Amino acid sequence: MVPEKTIERLSLYRRILLQVRAEGAAMIFSHQLAAMARVNAAQVRRDIMQLGCVGVPNGGYDAGDLLDSIDEFLYPPTFQKVALVGVGNLGRALLAHFAGRWRRLSVRAAFDKDPAKVGREFSGCPCHAVEALPRVVSELGISIGIIATPAAQAENVAELLCDAGVRGLLNFAPVRLPGPTHVYIENVDLTSALDKVAFFARQCEREALASGAGGTR
Amino acid sequence: MVPEKTIERLSLYRRILLQVRAEGAAMIFSHQLAAMARVNAAQVRRDIMQLGCVGVPNGGYDAGDLLDSIDEFLYPPTFQKVALVGVGNLGRALLAHFAGRWRRLSVRAAFDKDPAKVGREFSGCPCHAVEALPRVVSELGISIGIIATPAAQAENVAELLCDAGVRGLLNFAPVRLPGPTHVYIENVDLTSALDKVAFFARQCEREALASGAGGTR
Repeated sequence: MVPEKTIERLSLYRRILLQVRAEGAAMIFSHQLAAMARVNAAQVRRDIMQLGCVGVPNGGYDAGDLLDSIDEFLYPPTFQKVALVGVGNLGRALLAHFAGRWRRLSVRAAFDKDPAKVGREFSGCPCHAVEALPRVVSELGISIGIIATPAAQAENVAELLCDAGVRGLLNFAPVRLPGPTHVYIENVDLTSALDKVAFFARQCEREALASGAGGTR
Repeated sequence: MVPEKTIERLSLYRRILLQVRAEGAAMIFSHQLAAMARVNAAQVRRDIMQLGCVGVPNGGYDAGDLLDSIDEFLYPPTFQKVALVGVGNLGRALLAHFAGRWRRLSVRAAFDKDPAKVGREFSGCPCHAVEALPRVVSELGISIGIIATPAAQAENVAELLCDAGVRGLLNFAPVRLPGPTHVYIENVDLTSALDKVAFFARQCEREALASGAGGTR
């Protein structure tokens, strides 16, 4: 079992390497990648070793090779298809954000209960009625679901998606979903995230005042 | 120091209680709240004890009192103001998502470098030029920043926000920001989140096939 944090870091290295390569660099040292990802260099080397990738002694890693190794590790030889449910503000932003971002992963179907949205395309992704979800997900072989509905609909939508064969859920609704066996669930709670920042920002302000560092408010 | 996870759970309980109260219930048991939040009841009771809130023996908690206690704990007596930088698809979705969600916390200013967006309002929030950030943030007494810019601008924007007095950052750009002292940073990396779900969804699929449970693909 690969630790979740490793996957997060590899995903981050991948985007850093894409940028580095776009800027024309062919080689990269572990300490450079570490500085950009804000982790330590030993961690970067351990993560890269997991990929079975080796560096040139004193010359660092070939950025292109490293990128290929990460792609091979993170992405399957076959295509993975994603469905998004709930084409509100957040859903539309996610469709735009994710469109064209991966070579072997893409959002292929969106679902909403609003008839005004059904039949339209959002960032190139067709929107279907929620009633069509079981059929469309199963016909397209979709294996991942993104839930961007209000809280009240989330559990029902999760059940529909899992029944239709989805194996992973990225849930943005502010409810914890039950975890059926053999389905991976990642919750991203945006309201909690801002609540947390607000709480600790006040604590930082108090610490700053106490230490006499800045704090004119 | 209150653990981050406690804040996340309290934020979740708060939204559950709002819903419970809207549905007309006056009292709630720890095991009911626990079931809805998908944590165990002992955890709920520990969290509530932190608030200094006591239940009625065998009668559970008064939902309204509990809500007030959480509000008092999570939110300051004075207003906290938030700025959002980067009014693209994601930024606009966040503005719509966060608008009117809190009583004592609100996004008061947005910033973008696109002149076509400057001077307009998005979900009731005025958009300023990035050049005006130091002045506006300082004048309004904004203490929290949300970064929804592309990766390349994020570090610069974080520096501008912190220099202007911000004490907490919610960062959506796919880069790890340096953490200046007395500033709390929460990173939400949407691409990593979906990468992670995709990776573990494949693992779940393999496990399901191995165990003979479902898996027609």
